[in-house]
Amino acid sequence: MKIVDVTVQNFRYISNTVRDSEGHGHPGDPHEATNSLLTITTDEGVKGYCFGASASVINSLVKPLLIGEDPLYRERIWHILRERQRLHLATLSDKALCAVDMALWDLAGRYLGQPVHKLLGAYRDKVPAYASTMCGDDLPGGLATPEDYANFAVWCVKERGYPAYKLHTWQPPYPGAPSVKRDLEACAAVREALGPDVDLMLDPFHYYSREESLALARGLEKLDYLWMEEPMGEHSMSSFVWLTEQADLLIVGPETAEGKHFARAEWIKAGAADVIRAGVWDVGGITPTMKIIHLCESFNMSVEIHGGGAGNLHVLCAMGIPGRYYERGLLHPFIDYEAVPAWLNQRDDPMDNEGFVHVSQLPGLGQDINFDYIQDNLV
Amino acid sequence: MKIVDVTVQNFRYISNTVRDSEGHGHPGDPHEATNSLLTITTDEGVKGYCFGASASVINSLVKPLLIGEDPLYRERIWHILRERQRLHLATLSDKALCAVDMALWDLAGRYLGQPVHKLLGAYRDKVPAYASTMCGDDLPGGLATPEDYANFAVWCVKERGYPAYKLHTWQPPYPGAPSVKRDLEACAAVREALGPDVDLMLDPFHYYSREESLALARGLEKLDYLWMEEPMGEHSMSSFVWLTEQADLLIVGPETAEGKHFARAEWIKAGAADVIRAGVWDVGGITPTMKIIHLCESFNMSVEIHGGGAGNLHVLCAMGIPGRYYERGLLHPFIDYEAVPAWLNQRDDPMDNEGFVHVSQLPGLGQDINFDYIQDNLV
Repeated sequence: MKIVDVTVQNFRYISNTVRDSEGHGHPGDPHEATNSLLTITTDEGVKGYCFGASASVINSLVKPLLIGEDPLYRERIWHILRERQRLHLATLSDKALCAVDMALWDLAGRYLGQPVHKLLGAYRDKVPAYASTMCGDDLPGGLATPEDYANFAVWCVKERGYPAYKLHTWQPPYPGAPSVKRDLEACAAVREALGPDVDLMLDPFHYYSREESLALARGLEKLDYLWMEEPMGEHSMSSFVWLTEQADLLIVGPETAEGKHFARAEWIKAGAADVIRAGVWDVGGITPTMKIIHLCESFNMSVEIHGGGAGNLHVLCAMGIPGRYYERGLLHPFIDYEAVPAWLNQRDDPMDNEGFVHVSQLPGLGQDINFDYIQDNLV
Repeated sequence: MKIVDVTVQNFRYISNTVRDSEGHGHPGDPHEATNSLLTITTDEGVKGYCFGASASVINSLVKPLLIGEDPLYRERIWHILRERQRLHLATLSDKALCAVDMALWDLAGRYLGQPVHKLLGAYRDKVPAYASTMCGDDLPGGLATPEDYANFAVWCVKERGYPAYKLHTWQPPYPGAPSVKRDLEACAAVREALGPDVDLMLDPFHYYSREESLALARGLEKLDYLWMEEPMGEHSMSSFVWLTEQADLLIVGPETAEGKHFARAEWIKAGAADVIRAGVWDVGGITPTMKIIHLCESFNMSVEIHGGGAGNLHVLCAMGIPGRYYERGLLHPFIDYEAVPAWLNQRDDPMDNEGFVHVSQLPGLGQDINFDYIQDNLV
């Protein structure tokens, strides 16, 4: 079987998320936005799909490398792309590698009639989710105050059934942010509202100092939080060694640090985190995420998967170590997360009333794609 | 799909290998021996096979854990068996885990119509082999003298086409063994006979002292050998740190040390080897061997696969890092390695005239099993 075509179709949809000046998403007025669908096609007519690829990168850099390759040679293809990154540092990102790798896994699953987690060697079919909030804002009744976070946490846990809740607190450009004191006030309000038995986590501003980060950890320890992510820039691995050695709180990372499984190996060897973090879009796909999981299993370390989506869910259902939670979000009181995206016929991550997200048993990544919508809304 | 039956059939064949008092194999008079075939059967009639399982262990310890499980949940099943090892330390060995894991991979491949290396995400379809000798002996014209090793090396490389050659030298109970001096004489004779351009390796006696091991390494460096394996007991990891730090020669290990991927992680962190070693039968199957490969890739370390057979060959064809060689053997001047085992219709590891072993493209492990022979020779 050979790859004969690689295409990216851009299409319009109506978004209700707007970006602040620092790039973080918040609720906003509905407006037109674009998404994209990567399609890999073989000479046998088998296709694999992934949303979110850049047409220019795929067409100019990736397509010429894929044409003629056997799509079941995922390891070979992934290494070809990875090595090519050296030449195209700024453009051939790990996100591009992820889109291709996901489409190849989707293709294999569709070809063989199996969901990806079973091709990988399945471990489970459902994973508990945590409610992962958007970053703090200044919207009345949104995520503007510690009480807002507490009220939303009560809804997420007691109404919607999430077993756990993670705050993303205030970052610039919001007035008064960042603030360790205000972060801890929000975290305390949530703990107070939910009582002692719910797992709580924090992902704060990413450029605190060492001392601020440790103060934040100490405060979260008193509130019996489960973990904290990325309070400092991850390029300073030594800062995370310093923090991890002193904090009793679990420190989870790296998330945005470049370097795929290679970077995680160094973090483990250095003792820079208690729990490793990886997501398919951060490290170049399902293939390298499984390498990170196997690396971490070898050191008896857990991996908390970053972000949601079909790829991360299949990974969570194929791994034999924690990953204890699927990250569901980003959530906000003003946004209906359960709404089905226009380009799908159903969500990738349906959650039952007990807080379990169930992996699709459809072939491949299991996404139920609304091809008619995409064709009708091509850019 | 559910597993409904797990059986082991023992069958007779004629062996021309005998064991010395220390357990090493040598050529001998033909005699009756037994092998076994593990069969895992599902409610859909799909079957998976693996040779070499213990009937008593499978029937008493493993079968009750497998009945009712979905055979595509390899990760789940492997962890169930691994955890159960704590209870059955002496009996539920990594070899038993390997047999089950291999049979499950075989079953998945037969079910989906794909060879295992393509399910894993293939990287290549052929691997160069090295000729791996039996241990030294006292058989005239066998492997009794340095000249014998040299003569056999010339045949392996110049006649048969192997691109590389590995000596297993003399061990007890042979008179004069072990001897660093005699090992180096054999290694020198082989280098002399083959010239400077052939990769050569040594796997000697496994209980040399630190000083003897370093002397052996120094001698091999002068002979431009590629690597040395296991000159000391691997339970003393610190001895391998000591050796690896001082030797310029590549030190490859661990092979027999228990502990699966967990042990390899510690060897890497400690700097106890330059190249990691693993084989499916050593670590509990294809599933954990891939974990070791992903662990090693994360640290940019090569993995030289221990031993041959279908499982190791599929692993070699799925890994994106060296593994530069398939280990073909064990070979001896008196044994026709190309002879097809009675229980197969063709060898698992056919080698072409350029020294490449080609992986089977048949579904599953790709073994061409002679079921008639097995039925006719049941014990």
